[in-house]
Amino acid sequence: MSVPTDEALRVLAHHVGERLRQGRDHLVTAESCTGGWIAKCVTDIAGSSDWFDCGMAAYSYEAKQALLGVRPQTLEVHGAVSRETVIEMVSGALVNSGASVAVAVTGIAGPGGGSPDKPVGTVWIGWKRRGGYARAEMFQFAGDREAVRRQTVEAALKGLESL
Amino acid sequence: MSVPTDEALRVLAHHVGERLRQGRDHLVTAESCTGGWIAKCVTDIAGSSDWFDCGMAAYSYEAKQALLGVRPQTLEVHGAVSRETVIEMVSGALVNSGASVAVAVTGIAGPGGGSPDKPVGTVWIGWKRRGGYARAEMFQFAGDREAVRRQTVEAALKGLESL
Repeated sequence: MSVPTDEALRVLAHHVGERLRQGRDHLVTAESCTGGWIAKCVTDIAGSSDWFDCGMAAYSYEAKQALLGVRPQTLEVHGAVSRETVIEMVSGALVNSGASVAVAVTGIAGPGGGSPDKPVGTVWIGWKRRGGYARAEMFQFAGDREAVRRQTVEAALKGLESL
Repeated sequence: MSVPTDEALRVLAHHVGERLRQGRDHLVTAESCTGGWIAKCVTDIAGSSDWFDCGMAAYSYEAKQALLGVRPQTLEVHGAVSRETVIEMVSGALVNSGASVAVAVTGIAGPGGGSPDKPVGTVWIGWKRRGGYARAEMFQFAGDREAVRRQTVEAALKGLESL
């Protein structure tokens, strides 16, 4: 998988915006390892206030609990980078906003933080439509911190395109 | 005022991180017109989890109220782009997080949304240390949406450097 350029991300964000606008949907983003990059990317698009509601960049455990309602025991038992956590993040983002569509990401961008079973580049992404089921997928991205984050933004947006 | 490059923003974010680390401070960001770019910029820095707590990108009126506790009457009377709103944003960011230092931005990035008394490029930035007074400053940035947002990120970070 190649690392997308700024221009590629902009085109993708534009498509996502058109889909959300057509469906009269509003987006909420819940980001850990990308730290606001998805929200930055969608608000690059002029007129995004029509379909972007808000974003939470929840870096610390405390912020994941306070902003997104992730349960302490979920973080303890499964870790911040897990299917269970990303599903609670994407669900909590909808609970704590007026949006109809949510995306959440949590991963290990590096250079630190990796472990044998969760190496740098491990990323969980979740998507959910209000009233629907959450979908979650695990990715293993190659490259440095910048490359991992960039590929995470791309995968998150691609999932929104097909939601 | 010139428009900073990605590299200039990275250097600035690195300096801000060093200061926060030395002061054992944690940062919360509350962004409207930059939509997560400040949070993205600080989390570009490896190890930022040591000093970045969380970020809220509050685009809609509802999100400004729910995530940051901005009062509806403040938005009604003074507008989203005002000293009063940015001060409530920066204060609310501290109330709703465990951070010790906050920055908030609200402005008109364009191309739409401008008016004779608040033209495109009008941006309010607020900074606050927990237990201290909020400081707010108005900027009038030139250029397109990208340029206005980029200069806003720079000014927000510069203010954090000297907080």
